Amino acid sequence: MNKYLLHGKLVAQPGHGEQLRSILLKASEQVSASPGCRLYLISRDESDPDTVWVTEVWESKEDHAHSLQDEGVKELITHAMPILKGKPEGGQELIVVGGVGIGKE
Amino acid sequence: MNKYLLHGKLVAQPGHGEQLRSILLKASEQVSASPGCRLYLISRDESDPDTVWVTEVWESKEDHAHSLQDEGVKELITHAMPILKGKPEGGQELIVVGGVGIGKE
Repeated sequence: MNKYLLHGKLVAQPGHGEQLRSILLKASEQVSASPGCRLYLISRDESDPDTVWVTEVWESKEDHAHSLQDEGVKELITHAMPILKGKPEGGQELIVVGGVGIGKE
Repeated sequence: MNKYLLHGKLVAQPGHGEQLRSILLKASEQVSASPGCRLYLISRDESDPDTVWVTEVWESKEDHAHSLQDEGVKELITHAMPILKGKPEGGQELIVVGGVGIGKE
């Protein structure tokens, strides 16, 4: 299979977790049209309401990098930046070797 | 959406990473038939060939717990235990609030 998995955390400024999740849900709709996007999930963390996790699977690391150049995605990043607490960390990078449940080809 | 995400690491004894991944790929076929299983991905980590990551999404935490009682899954756990280095850690638990890419309902 060999796909690119990125599992990363974004922390919103206090009280802005819900707003950040809302922006990322819009981002998920945008990226679902990007070439190579296989999975883009937004999760919350019960231990901290202002922390948001994004779990992405792409056909390749290059497909992910390419998606960040999309105008709609860039605009959403512009909306998210002011409510982030500090800079986003890089996230965990893995190589998916197999499994079940991914939808579209 | 509100689904249960579990992202956890298993470390094999030196040189047994490939064998552990193979067992987990069989497990992914088993659990795909379990009620509530939405995603079960096996990944490797470029920084350590003996580390395997499992990323699961279930309709509920209870569905996940229930799947561990499946006879086929229990048998695969029995195969995996002797090649693990130490006990598996609990893994990261999150609540998926939305996104795209999950396949079957």
